Amino acid sequence: MPVTVLFAAKSERWEEYEAPLRTALAEKGVTADLVTEAAPETVDYIVYAPNSGLDDFRPYTRLKAVLNLWAGVEDVVGNPTLRVPLARMVDDEGLTQGMVEWVTGHVLRHHLGMDRHILGQDGLWRTGAPPLAFDRRVTILGLGALGAACGQALARLGFPVTGWSRSPKQVEGIDCLAGPEGLDAALARADILVLLLPLTPETDTLMDAARLAQLPRGAVLINPGRGALIEDEALIAALDADHLAHATLDVFREEPLPPEHPFWPHPKITVTPHIASETRAPSAARVIAENIRRAEAGAPMLHLVDREKGY
Amino acid sequence: MPVTVLFAAKSERWEEYEAPLRTALAEKGVTADLVTEAAPETVDYIVYAPNSGLDDFRPYTRLKAVLNLWAGVEDVVGNPTLRVPLARMVDDEGLTQGMVEWVTGHVLRHHLGMDRHILGQDGLWRTGAPPLAFDRRVTILGLGALGAACGQALARLGFPVTGWSRSPKQVEGIDCLAGPEGLDAALARADILVLLLPLTPETDTLMDAARLAQLPRGAVLINPGRGALIEDEALIAALDADHLAHATLDVFREEPLPPEHPFWPHPKITVTPHIASETRAPSAARVIAENIRRAEAGAPMLHLVDREKGY
Repeated sequence: MPVTVLFAAKSERWEEYEAPLRTALAEKGVTADLVTEAAPETVDYIVYAPNSGLDDFRPYTRLKAVLNLWAGVEDVVGNPTLRVPLARMVDDEGLTQGMVEWVTGHVLRHHLGMDRHILGQDGLWRTGAPPLAFDRRVTILGLGALGAACGQALARLGFPVTGWSRSPKQVEGIDCLAGPEGLDAALARADILVLLLPLTPETDTLMDAARLAQLPRGAVLINPGRGALIEDEALIAALDADHLAHATLDVFREEPLPPEHPFWPHPKITVTPHIASETRAPSAARVIAENIRRAEAGAPMLHLVDREKGY
Repeated sequence: MPVTVLFAAKSERWEEYEAPLRTALAEKGVTADLVTEAAPETVDYIVYAPNSGLDDFRPYTRLKAVLNLWAGVEDVVGNPTLRVPLARMVDDEGLTQGMVEWVTGHVLRHHLGMDRHILGQDGLWRTGAPPLAFDRRVTILGLGALGAACGQALARLGFPVTGWSRSPKQVEGIDCLAGPEGLDAALARADILVLLLPLTPETDTLMDAARLAQLPRGAVLINPGRGALIEDEALIAALDADHLAHATLDVFREEPLPPEHPFWPHPKITVTPHIASETRAPSAARVIAENIRRAEAGAPMLHLVDREKGY
């Protein structure tokens, strides 16, 4: 007998999630009626966004669990009418995989000099191939889950990858440095520098004028980490002085980046709109479907919220 | 005692190769005087381009071998004054690795929708992330050394990769199809299609209007193989009809692609100047240095030319 899964979120989410959810439920072997409206007493699971308008769970007398679409549960965890298990979204697959794809893509873009061709479709045959990856050194600042995964993907493509973290780490395939002296060495060899550090008092404005000057001449900076890791004015100055060749930035001190910000028109800066890593419908749908499969099979659900702790 | 290595090629080659050769010789532990001029009787090895002007090898009485800079030896192999071993350039590392980097880079470029941002630095915050690689199907036509290497690199990044060849092949990580029916299936699932077939009477104009129509709507075509695999007019028609989203082309029926060719100004075509795979100075320098190391160690040299066969 099919389970009834109510999708309770705004209509644009339904457009994004309907097909991925149907696919994911089928892949997991869950026979489900996936609907946006249903008599409350017939509903087994609710896929939930707190801004959906649904805030009284009492009529859902058959409800087995609520599956939050987002990582944050602060707007639902305290709802006194919710008396069934609540799972939050932990889309590790989407977040890590998305970051690996974005970082690998932009490292290759700069390595291959793609912009010269994408922006130069004027009939001029611009020969000249770049060096191979073996001869292009990549440094990643930050060796958490994202930094390590990106570094290993780049190493598998042939790039010599240096990783830096505050305290010593070991990641296979990456030359790992640590501490203040390690940072000097990591910057000095960064033909391409990728920032994947968390924002802390120690990393705030880490890439100031002095540290940007430690990069080799012609280096490229890629920042999918946190906007405040960089001193904006120092970055522009380093680009204008031809010390750096390019910067591709996905994160900013203010987002969306205001239209009048000097990053936008700068010929050596590419702005991308905080898209390097975010929850994606197909992988998020797989997390939801897996949780329904587990609940139906009597197996422990993933990512359940501890209502006392609130997360 | 150092060996004397004479670099006999045009001056622009010297600019390209000097530093890589010095690095590669040092890496291989060869102590060498690398020079562009020397008394002939002091020269141990010649790194050689046939258009260098050097065509009488008789004064080089101490010469141990000639190391051709290019793969083709047709302009030197018949030289009657050459009486020492002749090695041609086989830069597998550069050719395969370069192709993997170019193909991976451009697949990721289209997958991530990079052009939207590279060409759209106008202050508009264009949100929306692409699907993950798992949900973007790549088909590679051609499973030779290049096709297999590119397919495996893409599979390691998470793309579901289908490969097609005329006769059945097995490549780990790639769903391999073959024959005419396999081609239909391979095209039907190609969100991104990469052409890496050799040019033969069977593959000439393979991608005509009928086969382009077999691709899913919105597909992207990437051609680093041979220009004549595609029917140019049919490709333009498929792009204009919005059946295909984009084509990135590295090879053409006539090269350089004439400035007046309609590919250049087409908004859905990116022309790159036959750069996907070519001999690179750093890897070619390693091949030369390895051969000098072997000759000095009394080990068999690589890629020696059979003077009778002429290659």
